[in-house]
Amino acid sequence: MSKFWSKVVHGLTPYIPGEQPKLNNLIKLNTNENPYGPSPKVIAAIQEFADDNLRLYPDPNSEALKKSIADYFNVKANQVFVGNGSDEVLAIAFQALLKHHAPILFPDITYSFYPVYCKLYEIDFKTIPLNDSFEIVLNDYLMPNGGVIFPNPNAPTGIPLTLKKIEAFLDKNIDSVVIVDEAYVDFGTESVISLIEKYKNLLVTHSFSKSRSLAGLRLGYAIGHPDLIEALIRVKDSFNSYPIDRLGLIAGIESFKDDSYFKNTCHKVIKTKLNFIEKLKALNFSVLPSGANFVFAQHTSLDGKIIVSKLRDYGIVVRRFDNPIRISSYIRFTIGSDEEMQVLLETLKLILST
Amino acid sequence: MSKFWSKVVHGLTPYIPGEQPKLNNLIKLNTNENPYGPSPKVIAAIQEFADDNLRLYPDPNSEALKKSIADYFNVKANQVFVGNGSDEVLAIAFQALLKHHAPILFPDITYSFYPVYCKLYEIDFKTIPLNDSFEIVLNDYLMPNGGVIFPNPNAPTGIPLTLKKIEAFLDKNIDSVVIVDEAYVDFGTESVISLIEKYKNLLVTHSFSKSRSLAGLRLGYAIGHPDLIEALIRVKDSFNSYPIDRLGLIAGIESFKDDSYFKNTCHKVIKTKLNFIEKLKALNFSVLPSGANFVFAQHTSLDGKIIVSKLRDYGIVVRRFDNPIRISSYIRFTIGSDEEMQVLLETLKLILST
Repeated sequence: MSKFWSKVVHGLTPYIPGEQPKLNNLIKLNTNENPYGPSPKVIAAIQEFADDNLRLYPDPNSEALKKSIADYFNVKANQVFVGNGSDEVLAIAFQALLKHHAPILFPDITYSFYPVYCKLYEIDFKTIPLNDSFEIVLNDYLMPNGGVIFPNPNAPTGIPLTLKKIEAFLDKNIDSVVIVDEAYVDFGTESVISLIEKYKNLLVTHSFSKSRSLAGLRLGYAIGHPDLIEALIRVKDSFNSYPIDRLGLIAGIESFKDDSYFKNTCHKVIKTKLNFIEKLKALNFSVLPSGANFVFAQHTSLDGKIIVSKLRDYGIVVRRFDNPIRISSYIRFTIGSDEEMQVLLETLKLILST
Repeated sequence: MSKFWSKVVHGLTPYIPGEQPKLNNLIKLNTNENPYGPSPKVIAAIQEFADDNLRLYPDPNSEALKKSIADYFNVKANQVFVGNGSDEVLAIAFQALLKHHAPILFPDITYSFYPVYCKLYEIDFKTIPLNDSFEIVLNDYLMPNGGVIFPNPNAPTGIPLTLKKIEAFLDKNIDSVVIVDEAYVDFGTESVISLIEKYKNLLVTHSFSKSRSLAGLRLGYAIGHPDLIEALIRVKDSFNSYPIDRLGLIAGIESFKDDSYFKNTCHKVIKTKLNFIEKLKALNFSVLPSGANFVFAQHTSLDGKIIVSKLRDYGIVVRRFDNPIRISSYIRFTIGSDEEMQVLLETLKLILST
C-alpha cells in the first residue's frame, strides 16, 4: 500500500497463472501447453528474421499477420484484431466493449482472469452458476446485461457448447456484446467464427499458445464485426502502438501457412486425450467431457489435493483450484505426449494403490 | 461509432506513431531507430532459443531479465519492472500511479502519447509551457498535482535537463509521483536512476528500442522504489500475465551482457550527431541542443513542411509535427549512420539551393 498508488490499484487481486517451475525434468501438465513444438517452419522463420532489422520497429498494425488470419478463416482483415497473447486481447476487449451500465455476465466457474479484468477496469459483473453437470446453460443469461463472455470449451471444465446452442442464444441476446473465448477450440470444439457475419455483436477470441504451440511467443487474436474490431484498435492505439514484435509477426504468419503440421498435432493431442480419458475412468476417476487439450476429473474416493501433492513428489505437475469449493477436488490434467500420459497413469496407479 | 463500444472508446484519439514505410531503399530517419543492429550476441541468443521450448510459457515475472537490469544499475530486482516496450511500461504507470484527484502535469511540447494515455484512463492533466528556448522549467511545476511526467531529454526537442535540476525539483515535489521518461538518455543525457534510493516517488523509464537497437522486439523497463514497482506489477498481473516472450527475455539479458557493444554504438551515434549538428548549422538551420539520438532543427528561411516533402521525394523520411504550431516548422532528424547523414546533408544542400 502506498499513497502514490492510483485508487484502483488498492483493490486489485491479480490473476495467478499456473506455476512455471524452475526445476528441469518435471513432467509439466499444469498450464495447457502443447506437448509438440511449433512447426519447424515457424522456428526456421524466426531464426531467419533474427537479424539487424530488429533495430527497426515492427508494423504497428500487424497487417500481414491480420491478412494471414483473415485468409485462413475466410474473413476480411478489418474483422481481425491481434494482440500480445489472447490475455491482452481479452483485456482490451473488456475495456473497449464490456463497460456499460448493466453488469456483464459470465459463468461462476470459468477462466479466473475475467473477474480480474473487471476489477482493473471497474466493470460490474454477475456470475451465472453452471448446472449440476458443470455445463453452461445459456438460457440463464437471458437478462439485461452489459455483455456476456464465456470460454468455449469452458475452463477449467473443458466442457464444450455446440454452435447451435450459441446461435440460439445470439438470436435472443442482441443488445450487448457476446465474447466467445475459443482459446481451446481446436481440440474438439465447434468454432462460432462462421457466425460473425450474421451477429454484429459477436467477438471470438483465439490464442496461439495452445493449438499453435507458441505460448512462449505471446500471440492472440479476435475476429468479429469491423465496428467491434475498431473499438479494440482504438484502445490498443491508445495503449501501445506496437504490441506484436517482428518475430511474433513472422511466426504467426508461418504458423498459419503450415496447416498440415497444425492439424496433425491437434489430431495427435485429441487422440492422446481420448485414450487418457478411458484409462482415467478405469482408475475410478469421474471425468467431465472435454473439448479442450486438458481433462477435468475427480477421483471417486481420494481427494484431489492429496493426489496433486503426491504427483508433485513424483515430479509431475498438474493443476487444481481451491475455489470455488465445488471444483476443489477436481484435477486439471493437461494432455501431454503419449509417453508423458503413460508415466502419469502409472504414477496415479501407484498413488491410488498405496 | 457503435452502441457496443464502452463509453471511453468514443472519446479516444489514438497516438499516431511515425510512419513505417513499406518501400525499400528509403533512408529512414523518422522514428529514432538506431542505425546499428543489436549486438551479434543478442541475435545469436535469439537464434539459439528459437526452438521447441517456444511451446512453453515464459516466466511470467521475467525474473532473470529483471536481475540483469538490476545488476547493471546496481539496484535490487524488486526495484525493476519490465514491459512490452516502454510504451506499455508508461501506459501501466499512468494507470497505476498517476490517477489521483489533482491533474497530472507535463510539458505542452513533449511525447504526444501522454495525453492519449490520460484519455484512455480518464486522468485529468494540465500542460506546462516550455520557455522561449523550448526548455522545461521545473519550477513552473510547483503546484498541487496528481503526478508529474516528462521525458529527459525531452521529445521531440531533444533538450536535456541536468540531474541537479531534477533533484532540486524532487526536493520540493514530494507528495506525488514524478516519472522521468529516459527513452533517449543514453545519447548524452544524465540519468537520474542514482536518485531512486533517495526519492521514493521517483520512477525512471527506459527503452530497449533506441540505444539497445531492439525496437523490433518490444522491451522497456522502469526503475523505482519497490512500492511503485509493486503498483505496476499489480496492474500488469491484472492485465496480462506474460507480456514478455521467451525471445525478448533472452535478448534483453544478452543486451546487458554485451556492454562494450552497447557503449560503442551509443558513442558512434553521438559522434555522428555532433558532426551533423555542425553541418546543419552551416546550412542555416537553427538547431536545439540535443541529448538524444535525434536533432530538432528549423531552417532560417525555408519552411520545414516543404523541406520534409522534398526530402521524401528524394527517398529520405524524417518527421515533422503539425501541432503545436510553435514547432510546426521544425524537423526532427533521427541520427542514422555517417553515410546516411552524408546523403541527407547533400540532399538538403540541393533542396536549399533550388
